[in-house]
Amino acid sequence: MADHHVVIVGGGFGGLQLANDLKGAPVRITLIDRRNHHLFQPLLYQVATTLLATSEIAWPIRSFFRDRPEVTTLLAEVVGVDSGQHRVTLKGGETIDYDTLVLATGATHAYFGHDEWEPVAPGLKTLEDATTIRRRVLLAFEQAELEKDSAARDALLTFTIVGAGPTGVELAGIIAELARTTLPKEFRNIDTSKARIILVEAGPRILASFDKELSAYAHKALETVGVEVHTGESVTLCTAEGVTMGDKFLPTRTIVWAAGVQASPAAAWLGIAADRNGRAIVDKELRAPGENDVYIIGDTAAVMREDGSPVPGIAPAAKQQGAYVAKRIRAKLSGRAEPGPFVYHHQGSLATIGKSAAIIDFGWLKLKGWIAWWVWGLAHIYFLIGTRWRFAVAWSWLWIYVSRQHSARLITQRETMREE
Amino acid sequence: MADHHVVIVGGGFGGLQLANDLKGAPVRITLIDRRNHHLFQPLLYQVATTLLATSEIAWPIRSFFRDRPEVTTLLAEVVGVDSGQHRVTLKGGETIDYDTLVLATGATHAYFGHDEWEPVAPGLKTLEDATTIRRRVLLAFEQAELEKDSAARDALLTFTIVGAGPTGVELAGIIAELARTTLPKEFRNIDTSKARIILVEAGPRILASFDKELSAYAHKALETVGVEVHTGESVTLCTAEGVTMGDKFLPTRTIVWAAGVQASPAAAWLGIAADRNGRAIVDKELRAPGENDVYIIGDTAAVMREDGSPVPGIAPAAKQQGAYVAKRIRAKLSGRAEPGPFVYHHQGSLATIGKSAAIIDFGWLKLKGWIAWWVWGLAHIYFLIGTRWRFAVAWSWLWIYVSRQHSARLITQRETMREE
Repeated sequence: MADHHVVIVGGGFGGLQLANDLKGAPVRITLIDRRNHHLFQPLLYQVATTLLATSEIAWPIRSFFRDRPEVTTLLAEVVGVDSGQHRVTLKGGETIDYDTLVLATGATHAYFGHDEWEPVAPGLKTLEDATTIRRRVLLAFEQAELEKDSAARDALLTFTIVGAGPTGVELAGIIAELARTTLPKEFRNIDTSKARIILVEAGPRILASFDKELSAYAHKALETVGVEVHTGESVTLCTAEGVTMGDKFLPTRTIVWAAGVQASPAAAWLGIAADRNGRAIVDKELRAPGENDVYIIGDTAAVMREDGSPVPGIAPAAKQQGAYVAKRIRAKLSGRAEPGPFVYHHQGSLATIGKSAAIIDFGWLKLKGWIAWWVWGLAHIYFLIGTRWRFAVAWSWLWIYVSRQHSARLITQRETMREE
Repeated sequence: MADHHVVIVGGGFGGLQLANDLKGAPVRITLIDRRNHHLFQPLLYQVATTLLATSEIAWPIRSFFRDRPEVTTLLAEVVGVDSGQHRVTLKGGETIDYDTLVLATGATHAYFGHDEWEPVAPGLKTLEDATTIRRRVLLAFEQAELEKDSAARDALLTFTIVGAGPTGVELAGIIAELARTTLPKEFRNIDTSKARIILVEAGPRILASFDKELSAYAHKALETVGVEVHTGESVTLCTAEGVTMGDKFLPTRTIVWAAGVQASPAAAWLGIAADRNGRAIVDKELRAPGENDVYIIGDTAAVMREDGSPVPGIAPAAKQQGAYVAKRIRAKLSGRAEPGPFVYHHQGSLATIGKSAAIIDFGWLKLKGWIAWWVWGLAHIYFLIGTRWRFAVAWSWLWIYVSRQHSARLITQRETMREE
């Protein structure tokens, strides 16, 4: 067994890429995650909106390493790092020693100091978040069907999404299609196509990371599928009854939070500086400052591009960082010079609006409309891990495309808050 | 709109068959269920054991009636019936008047007076039950991988199924295959193939409803895949640490309850007699005694065959009863003579043992081994509702058959009890 022990915390895109790229290197690896599954987060919004099933976008982390006996996968939660002792501490007190530590622990949603909004305005980072949002959206229609009071019914049929980045835009587009295309024939007392889907964005335009022209196109495409887009408006209060924007109160029983992210506490474990989203400030080699053997990658690291702009918190960035750290570890162990500073290559930005429009910004090429939608679909099917899932997702999408029926409209796991 | 109002409570096999068979009849229908989905219960054990995803065996009830404007589906819970007023009461107080009422509310699992066992020994009746069992089985392996104490590790790697009807047998067979075929290469500190899977049956033999020879074959097939079968032993205590059988204590951290059923409270709503499992005693026309307009069908009714033996609580029986009641309603409304007493036609009994053996008892034909397994698989694919799902399930099974990889190994919805 190799002597050099690499401990990777987090089985997201960055952690998995790193473990993959270390195949054949003279190391043993321990991969620790508090969930048993890797999640294909870019499609999580499709679970939240009944397009895909949970098991179509999530796979047991340990199943990736069946044929890598040098990789040990642990379902456990890391609660601290002692970089002096080269040791991480698990919840429960157990410790694990490392030679090289890589923290790839991701991020969660953030409420800008209003964590009390979370119960009424769930974010979308985990499978449970997705099934919670799915349940609430479907239950709102069910309760509206039974509701006699017209104001209460209107509030049930108003869906508010806060934040118009790709996730917010994608959620709004699919919910609008669900209400206008899939559900109308199934209800007798309500007209689901009258449902209001409201997308609120504090900034001056939606999809701010895209080119202005594409952003304007997406804005229009959203309105075409029936989404009311409010830019330049901040949500100042979320309650079970509705949201307040400035001096306006909007009665809405379903709120989804897609507005902010907060990095996991890797910086706090190490006692190093973080930016305002909690992301650890790393050096140009993605290491914790002053540490030779501790790397921080993905959404929990604040990495800058050469022009001073931040590397975006998207899957390709995390994967590039995982691949970079693997190269450094390999170089070090073989006595070669380690690669120079990490350089991020932006491959492009993608977002979909409902079932037939999308925008893609490759920099050198900008696409919109149905061509972009097909490129988007093929790209995502390509990146899905494993033949079976590629096939299953392709089949689900094809079925939805042809039949207009969503496949995963299940209300599961009762919760007390909204029922009764 | 037709005047005659049929209210169906329960969207299981009986209720759906009835609603289907009333297509074109001069009635309007309200179908009430407290869940939004119909569940293909015969395959629920495959969700509990990671073979199928939840959305492969459950579909929104209202989606079946998109093109039947006379059918209204309500997600609501019935809490009482006033047969004098021809009225049902919903939780929350609302009432719905009926001309004909059909109660098809099913059954849940029962602990023979020991409901306190439920938290440690969940049964298998709902999608949540299935994901609970799936989570506990998978977590037990995960925790064993981390456990240093060998006695605790052995208890984590001991899985006990109480009750050896078809559900218990099917669960035991798949858990054994999971431990022996799917998981061994994925763990580093434990040998999952050493896991003990224990099936406990109080009666003298497993699968008592089958022919003795088939039952003996299944017993042997279970032992071949690695299940320890204990017949003639009663469980007298279930705790988080293990089960007691007679004077033996067996340390086991995962217990699944497949031993008893308890009918839903239809009999109590009507104030009529019930058998010891709570099933309402109905007349030969499946009506509540003395009531002309209240039928009770499926698992919540105690229906007898001509020879005095009970009609089994299986899907085909419920469907036959739903079809029978539809015929009676149609006859009554058209002024024809209503059909005579309900007669149950037993089409056969099926059970699978793991991935390649099954037994089938058609009465006139008894099958076992891989032939029975293929007949079983084709029969279930045939009965799955909707082309998409037939295809999806066939694909999942084919994939598992070829790759030996289970597709839905997700641990979701944390619970406090067993974690830590």
